[in-house]
Amino acid sequence: MCITDVDRSKIEPRIVSLVRSWSAMPKDAAMPEACRNVMDAVTHQAVSSSEGGKRLRALLMLAAYAAFGGETAARSAMLDVACALEVFQTAALVHDDIIDDSDLRRGKPSAHRALEQDTGSAAIGRGLGLMLGDLLATVCIDIANGAADHMPNGTAMTSAFLNMQREVEIGQILDLAVEQAPLRDAEALATASLNVFRWKTASYTTIAPIELALLGCGLDPGNARARALSIGEPLGLAFQLEDDLIDVIGSSRATGKPVGGDIREGKRTVLLADAIAAASPSEQGELIAMFEAPSRDESDVRRAIDLFSSTGAVDRSHRRIEDLWDRALQAIRDCRLPEQGENRLTEACARFVPDITSH
Amino acid sequence: MCITDVDRSKIEPRIVSLVRSWSAMPKDAAMPEACRNVMDAVTHQAVSSSEGGKRLRALLMLAAYAAFGGETAARSAMLDVACALEVFQTAALVHDDIIDDSDLRRGKPSAHRALEQDTGSAAIGRGLGLMLGDLLATVCIDIANGAADHMPNGTAMTSAFLNMQREVEIGQILDLAVEQAPLRDAEALATASLNVFRWKTASYTTIAPIELALLGCGLDPGNARARALSIGEPLGLAFQLEDDLIDVIGSSRATGKPVGGDIREGKRTVLLADAIAAASPSEQGELIAMFEAPSRDESDVRRAIDLFSSTGAVDRSHRRIEDLWDRALQAIRDCRLPEQGENRLTEACARFVPDITSH
Repeated sequence: MCITDVDRSKIEPRIVSLVRSWSAMPKDAAMPEACRNVMDAVTHQAVSSSEGGKRLRALLMLAAYAAFGGETAARSAMLDVACALEVFQTAALVHDDIIDDSDLRRGKPSAHRALEQDTGSAAIGRGLGLMLGDLLATVCIDIANGAADHMPNGTAMTSAFLNMQREVEIGQILDLAVEQAPLRDAEALATASLNVFRWKTASYTTIAPIELALLGCGLDPGNARARALSIGEPLGLAFQLEDDLIDVIGSSRATGKPVGGDIREGKRTVLLADAIAAASPSEQGELIAMFEAPSRDESDVRRAIDLFSSTGAVDRSHRRIEDLWDRALQAIRDCRLPEQGENRLTEACARFVPDITSH
Repeated sequence: MCITDVDRSKIEPRIVSLVRSWSAMPKDAAMPEACRNVMDAVTHQAVSSSEGGKRLRALLMLAAYAAFGGETAARSAMLDVACALEVFQTAALVHDDIIDDSDLRRGKPSAHRALEQDTGSAAIGRGLGLMLGDLLATVCIDIANGAADHMPNGTAMTSAFLNMQREVEIGQILDLAVEQAPLRDAEALATASLNVFRWKTASYTTIAPIELALLGCGLDPGNARARALSIGEPLGLAFQLEDDLIDVIGSSRATGKPVGGDIREGKRTVLLADAIAAASPSEQGELIAMFEAPSRDESDVRRAIDLFSSTGAVDRSHRRIEDLWDRALQAIRDCRLPEQGENRLTEACARFVPDITSH
């Protein structure tokens, strides 16, 4: 616990410092004051958007690095790679919020919305938001690249970082593609949704943190990848399933999020697929009609939540999460780490599925 | 001439092959047919958006590589870096078209518009377009990185490629910022616009092609950067000024583009700044009112074109372009290359300012 708190206290200021220096606007460019104000607003937003994450991914990377015996001398380079991963997430979220036209992120205005307020123009705000996402996506590679130079497997680390970035981008494309999946074939929809989780979420949430840490410890790339997949793939799927479940039944912890958001948006989730698969024919028709409609009101949301429970879809998600967590645990044990390392890694992994691991 | 045609015939198929393999969707992911169709549409669009550029940047890189004595053995790696640069441009254009909400690109529907048609949804098409731009921006680094491994200065090449990408992103931010510049202080506006050109255009159009080529020839990074800036900065500014000029007076070549597009959009250009600076007080007021208005009609466009000519702004742009081209030529001569190399490089540079260099 203590080590993690030390890590957390180092991550936050390092992210701010890295983002501020890499996303700085040119000082020598002679620009009128009105332009300079816009440029300053973008740099300010780059830092603001980067702040306030839970840093689970960075903490997992540092825990895996310690567990697999990473050298203390290269620890600050590993910290920078962990920060790079968090900056990559920020870049992805900035674009995500443009795609979903979201107003809020981490309790603050989303980047494009904040920049709209700064400039007084929706079009310029959206353009600046899009560019800020692009800039942060470049900056995170710069950060990772610079740090990888000081570590074993430097070239492989850069490749793994780029591979992660590409997997997430493909995952976002799959996520949009799934919106076109027919609802009738529920088993196929469940499989497709789990696939989306693998690419869109597990890739950078749990697989890449472990893979990059193990590369940083000097494991050969094939081995690092195999271990990262065996732990990270089930863990990442469990994480996303729990996140979707919290959207329906709330969390045992106080997350402050209102329930039902995914249903209101009509999102194709594993929960929905499981509910359709287990529902009676008339309930099936009801769910399909509801999710094929252009929008859903509050009574639809309540009815969908009831059906997700009564059909057993919620229970099935719980079982799916438990099975996946067991697979992740087994994969950790298969690494045959020293006890302290195994405990540390298990603890970092457990943070991704708190509702399962806390009882 | 002949060598360039050989280069051109190699560039196009290599870009298609690289984009197709790096932006391929996962084959093993079990996805319903409807989703698979969307995934295929994105891969198809990745290739389609990548096709049909003039490839001036790639040709400049290969010409500089030959002129500075690049080794034949590493020529195919240099070709891949040149293709990576062209893919980066495609990525930037895909996002540019979303920011400007453009319907057309290179005579075909823009990427987000084509994907909107493929999916029957404006929101999904725009989301997929944004992600396609992200994916291509990652893919081009992958391509450059893979090629750099086979060249001298591999690490410096990767850094230079990332630096170019960051400069363009900053340039796009400056470009949006300039839209907020007051029109009254015309000299400051002209300086700011030239600054935008340096970051948004010269960075990847003329500076990076030369810098990457010289790194590929084994020049030390400081020297490669200095030479690339001395030739590429004036050349890139001249290129963008000529492009803006063609928008107002048309080209001596048949470009097929209608004139006046920038004026209709109300773009802050060096031409506009020069016209305001040289105009009589009443014409000044007229231009400022016209460009501060939310839109401009055909008679506004004609009137602006007349004023750009009568104030001498068009002539001033011509002189600016000639001076910049002279600076680029001098910088080429300062490299003291063998005659054949100097001619080849000069020819590749001249293609960026054909209206100046053809008479």
